[in-house]
Amino acid sequence: MIPVRILGTASVLPGPAVTTAELCARVGRNAAEVARKTGILTRHFAPPGTKAADVAAQALRGALDAAGLEARALRRILCVTSMGGDVTTPATANRVAAALGLSGSCDAMDLSNACMGFLSAFDLAARSVATGLGPVGIVSVELLSRTTTPEEPRPYLVLGDAAAAAVMGAGRSGEGVLGVALGNDGTLPTDVVLENPTATGKLERMRFLTPSQEMTRVALDALVRAARAALDEAGVTLHDVEWVLTHQPNGSMLEAILQALEVSPERSVRVVDTVGSVGSASLGTSLDRLLRTRPVKPGHRILLVGVGAGVAHGAVLYQVGG
Amino acid sequence: MIPVRILGTASVLPGPAVTTAELCARVGRNAAEVARKTGILTRHFAPPGTKAADVAAQALRGALDAAGLEARALRRILCVTSMGGDVTTPATANRVAAALGLSGSCDAMDLSNACMGFLSAFDLAARSVATGLGPVGIVSVELLSRTTTPEEPRPYLVLGDAAAAAVMGAGRSGEGVLGVALGNDGTLPTDVVLENPTATGKLERMRFLTPSQEMTRVALDALVRAARAALDEAGVTLHDVEWVLTHQPNGSMLEAILQALEVSPERSVRVVDTVGSVGSASLGTSLDRLLRTRPVKPGHRILLVGVGAGVAHGAVLYQVGG
Repeated sequence: MIPVRILGTASVLPGPAVTTAELCARVGRNAAEVARKTGILTRHFAPPGTKAADVAAQALRGALDAAGLEARALRRILCVTSMGGDVTTPATANRVAAALGLSGSCDAMDLSNACMGFLSAFDLAARSVATGLGPVGIVSVELLSRTTTPEEPRPYLVLGDAAAAAVMGAGRSGEGVLGVALGNDGTLPTDVVLENPTATGKLERMRFLTPSQEMTRVALDALVRAARAALDEAGVTLHDVEWVLTHQPNGSMLEAILQALEVSPERSVRVVDTVGSVGSASLGTSLDRLLRTRPVKPGHRILLVGVGAGVAHGAVLYQVGG
Repeated sequence: MIPVRILGTASVLPGPAVTTAELCARVGRNAAEVARKTGILTRHFAPPGTKAADVAAQALRGALDAAGLEARALRRILCVTSMGGDVTTPATANRVAAALGLSGSCDAMDLSNACMGFLSAFDLAARSVATGLGPVGIVSVELLSRTTTPEEPRPYLVLGDAAAAAVMGAGRSGEGVLGVALGNDGTLPTDVVLENPTATGKLERMRFLTPSQEMTRVALDALVRAARAALDEAGVTLHDVEWVLTHQPNGSMLEAILQALEVSPERSVRVVDTVGSVGSASLGTSLDRLLRTRPVKPGHRILLVGVGAGVAHGAVLYQVGG
């Protein structure tokens, strides 16, 4: 076990809710059909000019408040994004730290692993804390509305903006990460790509490639294997796990994942219907929602699991402390 | 101490060496003066079409060879870049793993912290290994020639392309990170910026802002404080340290750092004269050069120290094992 404690979480949805009906009207699509296919009714688009660092700082401040900590208690900030943040160099994380009023009291860096970035950061934060460097603030921030246009309706109709944060500190007895299994497979075709304009020499948008049924099966298999490996490491089965949080790119994938794991929706927290597809912020948003609105008790186990572009896949099993 | 062992290192300079004289001829500048001011005689520019992932994979393969390991031994790959890699989503690290022939046997993610990214990854790799997840491959890859044009001579005349890798595994007795002090200060003005085109809506280049003498002093102070903090944690002084590797953005900054630390050039490894300013790959390149060409012995201590955009600054003190 990696001893670590989730000290606090928070999530932020920047800007007003935008309905699927409103977006469908703009692109000439049937709203009822899109809502049924995607499982998304609303998402949030940050107002023009919004800085990812400010939204991230708001989420991290909320997590610090929940933890009862001042920002200067942080020893490290991991800022996760799939859209490159506000700035490529220096890391956007510097601006997050500055927005929290910090000047040199912790280190800060950007991290990306598509939709699995929050899990990657969760693992790195746990290992940092367990080796004496904590508390660590992790924050996923995605202003994915920047990466879409109405001319490409598939991403435009599902992607949304969000940030989610967690502050991780020293674990008490029996508290922490019981099992972890993370993997990436760059040999598989991926279904989501955002090229780097500095590499291609032209502006880029998030592109959705059509995944084959075979691809979806491969992705689900990778996810289920990761979940089993994390559970095996802990010496437990899914019957011993109270809560299962999954990455939620859309409603049907959420349902396919829960079905593949044989988990009832009551043990999970659905967020995709109101926040849309928010990349690496998806798992953090449902974690925050879980801890704020569900009867999570000491000794409960939470499985965080997902699959995303890369193909990145993985699972972390966390045991709640007293 | 964080128990960890540097199992192997490697570095790669893609493409042919390009002389300062050749570049100065293109932009109408005096080569002797530029060479004197920058301390740079040559750098490498990767041929058009070169993929960062391929250069990174070549460096990581070299480090694996030096370690006597197969790529499938890796449990994690941390790919560090200041220029956004080949692709923003999924992480370029997936393509590095795929180029090494890996399909799902380890996780992989991108990380950025300007010129301090290699130190950030070194720290995260050490903490991963110490908590049971290793070996970890870290690789800094910078194709900075993609971010410059002759129209902006200051970055054009100093930036170069390079990759540097290290494979980190379980530490033996008395071997590992004795002290570490990493920090970022986003409240300070920074002297190097590469905006994210996806955020600004236009193509971007690496921009050098003119640092004031005051800024240089602040940066050096941060570096010296970090070095002292890492040494203090280990309970040693610089007299107990055989080798001091510094980030090398240019020759005069290298000299200023060595002077500020009161370290003679013989205890360091100068690379900037032949590789140019290679961002996060600078420290990794000098680490590789040190381990391949200098009489490094068991019990020796290596201080890696630097300061870069962010303002990111830090030091890691590593003790060599038997």
